[in-house]
Amino acid sequence: MAQTREEIATLLTTRNNWGRWGPDDQRGAVNLVTPGRTRAAAAGVATGEVLSLSRPFPKDPGPTNPKPASHFVMREARGAGGMASDYLGLNFHGLACTHIDALNHAWSLEGMWNGRQPDDVLRPSGALWGGIEAWGGGIVTRGVLLDVPRYRGVPYVTQDRPVHGEELQEICAAQGVEMQPGDAVAVYSGREEHDRHEAPWGTGPARPGLHASCLGFLRDTDCAVLIWDMLDMAPNGVGMDWAVHAALYAFGTALVDNALLEPLANACAERHRYDFMFVVAPLPVAGGTGSPVNPLAVL
Amino acid sequence: MAQTREEIATLLTTRNNWGRWGPDDQRGAVNLVTPGRTRAAAAGVATGEVLSLSRPFPKDPGPTNPKPASHFVMREARGAGGMASDYLGLNFHGLACTHIDALNHAWSLEGMWNGRQPDDVLRPSGALWGGIEAWGGGIVTRGVLLDVPRYRGVPYVTQDRPVHGEELQEICAAQGVEMQPGDAVAVYSGREEHDRHEAPWGTGPARPGLHASCLGFLRDTDCAVLIWDMLDMAPNGVGMDWAVHAALYAFGTALVDNALLEPLANACAERHRYDFMFVVAPLPVAGGTGSPVNPLAVL
Amino acid sequence: MAQTREEIATLLTTRNNWGRWGPDDQRGAVNLVTPGRTRAAAAGVATGEVLSLSRPFPKDPGPTNPKPASHFVMREARGAGGMASDYLGLNFHGLACTHIDALNHAWSLEGMWNGRQPDDVLRPSGALWGGIEAWGGGIVTRGVLLDVPRYRGVPYVTQDRPVHGEELQEICAAQGVEMQPGDAVAVYSGREEHDRHEAPWGTGPARPGLHASCLGFLRDTDCAVLIWDMLDMAPNGVGMDWAVHAALYAFGTALVDNALLEPLANACAERHRYDFMFVVAPLPVAGGTGSPVNPLAVL
Amino acid sequence: MAQTREEIATLLTTRNNWGRWGPDDQRGAVNLVTPGRTRAAAAGVATGEVLSLSRPFPKDPGPTNPKPASHFVMREARGAGGMASDYLGLNFHGLACTHIDALNHAWSLEGMWNGRQPDDVLRPSGALWGGIEAWGGGIVTRGVLLDVPRYRGVPYVTQDRPVHGEELQEICAAQGVEMQPGDAVAVYSGREEHDRHEAPWGTGPARPGLHASCLGFLRDTDCAVLIWDMLDMAPNGVGMDWAVHAALYAFGTALVDNALLEPLANACAERHRYDFMFVVAPLPVAGGTGSPVNPLAVL
Repeated sequence: MAQTREEIATLLTTRNNWGRWGPDDQRGAVNLVTPGRTRAAAAGVATGEVLSLSRPFPKDPGPTNPKPASHFVMREARGAGGMASDYLGLNFHGLACTHIDALNHAWSLEGMWNGRQPDDVLRPSGALWGGIEAWGGGIVTRGVLLDVPRYRGVPYVTQDRPVHGEELQEICAAQGVEMQPGDAVAVYSGREEHDRHEAPWGTGPARPGLHASCLGFLRDTDCAVLIWDMLDMAPNGVGMDWAVHAALYAFGTALVDNALLEPLANACAERHRYDFMFVVAPLPVAGGTGSPVNPLAVL
Repeated sequence: MAQTREEIATLLTTRNNWGRWGPDDQRGAVNLVTPGRTRAAAAGVATGEVLSLSRPFPKDPGPTNPKPASHFVMREARGAGGMASDYLGLNFHGLACTHIDALNHAWSLEGMWNGRQPDDVLRPSGALWGGIEAWGGGIVTRGVLLDVPRYRGVPYVTQDRPVHGEELQEICAAQGVEMQPGDAVAVYSGREEHDRHEAPWGTGPARPGLHASCLGFLRDTDCAVLIWDMLDMAPNGVGMDWAVHAALYAFGTALVDNALLEPLANACAERHRYDFMFVVAPLPVAGGTGSPVNPLAVL
Repeated sequence: MAQTREEIATLLTTRNNWGRWGPDDQRGAVNLVTPGRTRAAAAGVATGEVLSLSRPFPKDPGPTNPKPASHFVMREARGAGGMASDYLGLNFHGLACTHIDALNHAWSLEGMWNGRQPDDVLRPSGALWGGIEAWGGGIVTRGVLLDVPRYRGVPYVTQDRPVHGEELQEICAAQGVEMQPGDAVAVYSGREEHDRHEAPWGTGPARPGLHASCLGFLRDTDCAVLIWDMLDMAPNGVGMDWAVHAALYAFGTALVDNALLEPLANACAERHRYDFMFVVAPLPVAGGTGSPVNPLAVL
Repeated sequence: MAQTREEIATLLTTRNNWGRWGPDDQRGAVNLVTPGRTRAAAAGVATGEVLSLSRPFPKDPGPTNPKPASHFVMREARGAGGMASDYLGLNFHGLACTHIDALNHAWSLEGMWNGRQPDDVLRPSGALWGGIEAWGGGIVTRGVLLDVPRYRGVPYVTQDRPVHGEELQEICAAQGVEMQPGDAVAVYSGREEHDRHEAPWGTGPARPGLHASCLGFLRDTDCAVLIWDMLDMAPNGVGMDWAVHAALYAFGTALVDNALLEPLANACAERHRYDFMFVVAPLPVAGGTGSPVNPLAVL
């Protein structure tokens, strides 16, 4: 599996998904989530327990939330009763808010997903390409949780030992699950446990997380969605502008950043089963670079 | 079924759900969505087709959108590549944005859900009661579409003929579906077709929609969620501050306002089946009065 | 000068300005700034040096800025050149942003300025009374700086020794200035020096500042504008809901909160002159409860 | 005076102000507003009448306001009384809001003010160069109104007859005023009267206004601030990316866009005097590309 900068660069150029679903496709690897895959995911529901994979909506400032979301509640009388409404404002990218990245969120020198150039498509009022509305139909597919700390026998992923693509393969085998095309993979790195023992994850320039070699895993498995609590390790070790996030522009993979995975990891371990029905429904913002989301796992 | 102001007032006071799940419950009728109900909803998935019930994210001003959502896209270089992010701001209540109302959104003289008083719990920075985070775990249940125009043989609901609770019962029978406790009901009134022929629904003080007698239907069926395209008819005809919206404070019913139901109605008619798996996942805004959502129907 | 709760209550009811400029007046004590007063203020300009009385626009979170202002910069190409624009969002009240309070910002049991009741005039989309647009014509008048720390021979005002109305009179005498109707008074308490030595002013429930007895000074001098760095002492010592802020609803005085007064105090001390031309120009937000401002002192 | 594209290009390159106040200067032509100029402006105040040059804060959508400002009012109890506060959000550039452009708002192929390159200084969280905080100290100088419709004997400027630099010279002579270095010039084109008779100014791609030849006038007079109601004519007739707006990057001139000048024009005509004290005080937003403002004219 591609490990070095050169190997990864080769992977991204020789095995990218550009053109795979046509030159004008804006749905990327989410095309792999067919109705049949959705139906199978639903059929796999066992207990009907629903777990939210969302961290709290980030209203309060903090070390990893320097630009907290705005939330203001208004009220007004309505006869003898009344009503309350609210204003929400946020810049959801970053390390605090659980959100999905659209395909136009990141690009390399070669361009965005399917080869579009940012200068041609980005506008202050919304992008003309790769906007989150392309996934506005929702994504319902099988999810697979890979529990890195449990596999390693440690409480959480640390800076000195990033998560590699080969390890993800090993965890699949150890957990007895096999990735299938169109699956959503949730890579649990133990962010909550990390934060109970160390300065909050994401404070400072260095942070533990996934190594760029995970790109090979995503490509080999035809994964549609990557859900993660710790994101790319930083520095990323391969000296690239984008590491795992390159999956956006190269493979068309949906990324669900800053997910809350501890409850799901605990539930999977308890029942010795690591797959579930995954649902994410982005707000269909025309030309948006992503959306805050509340992803769900149905066990 | 309660029809007059007096009958409805009696319904709301003698048959409300206050205390039904304990005096401190904030989940209301969503408690009826048990894991068993979720499992059954998943088991009912037939084709795996997913339909979004969301109207477009309301960025543009219009007759029914005087306070459009803000959306601004920023970009920055990242080495030889780059990234784009966005700011979203909105006041989602009103007639433009598909959203879910939290239990603290509406109250009568008697109070909010479970008897709380607005002065005690509403704060500008978020409510202390009935906030949308109570449903932050997501709602996955069986959905039932009731197609009013098709039942009536008309293109859309008109001002002179509001939708009544008894008619909803009749439509269930005609469509061959039976409501079960914890179901989500989607009442389709033909808003899109209305807007193709008349001034946009919601323009002006009068608008067609559901009559307060639908409250009896919601209560009798132990409905957990009401999804609707046209909302309360206005004026509501019973002279109450709140008509069908009273389900929020009286029954604890979740309301999904301004849903896009035409594609779902068409799909249901084509396959002669009116139930589906319904998923809605509000953003867990602490103390929020609701959330913009992208509700999904999985056929 | 009124000192106790009872004396202040009497002052506010027997000597308030309700009706003084007619029952429908919304400009309050700013009516005292006549063209003649403006002309005199301009005529008093000596050096033409201009000092901003604004603290930095509060973009960054901090102990006294839990809800920082939003600021996002967008860019777009324009032929071979380009343009940048920005989004600004803020809740300017509080302790971080230099702002002016409108007359509808505060009220007591008796009501708002000129006796209006909040339930009658407050709407989520803007107030129908006392909005900041009433001062949209700008305020240009004589300003008088009262330097409390210099008078006391201390670096800054402390919790155990609030600023009283009688002391303001004494400072006028000591500085050789006489207040005239329609003047703006800037009460400097040494907030910057305080923050160099102690936890930032406004952290925690207790904070040094002005005592409610300053209300008598404002009324006796027919002051049009109060500009201050430290605001009401907290707790206010008289057990009232509002202390000096009561000047808003009782006298119609404009309040410029969180002003930056150290540079002005230094300049005044150097030149042994404590008056200047004061200019403040609120954004004319219809129904707004105030405005962020950049107040100017022209020496 | 430069008229053609070539002449104007020559003007912008051979007579720009880059380096005039040092290579790191960020205040541009506002450096010409010395304390002496401010003192003289104050000394020229005759009646003390204050006029706001701000149009209403643009809360409502309209043909020239597709992205209206957000304004939401919150309230909360405070003992027996209460308080109201508000949230303001806006993208002030465009044609609706009265605002000042910072020097980083516009650039050509050659760069921004003083030769800086946008890629080097623009960041989504604020610009590192030419931000509005450079003028955070406020601008108080002599203003001169040039009344184009009155000079022409027409109600307002029309598309077929843009305002040229030579005409501004002629109007100075006709009005008996002489521009001095550091002055603010207010070019009145009759926007309100235009809007009483035609589709709102700024609707559609073509709009009357100032021709690029006005750049010569700004440069020759060492004007510090241009205040205008109609902006650049569009299309600008010289085929340049920026026409009069080029004064930002070439001369360092402050631009106050969308000013309300009709009341000032009327007042000047009545008293046969065309100069006044001009005050503008931008919000000191670090790295901002401008600020909403309420500019004042003191007669």
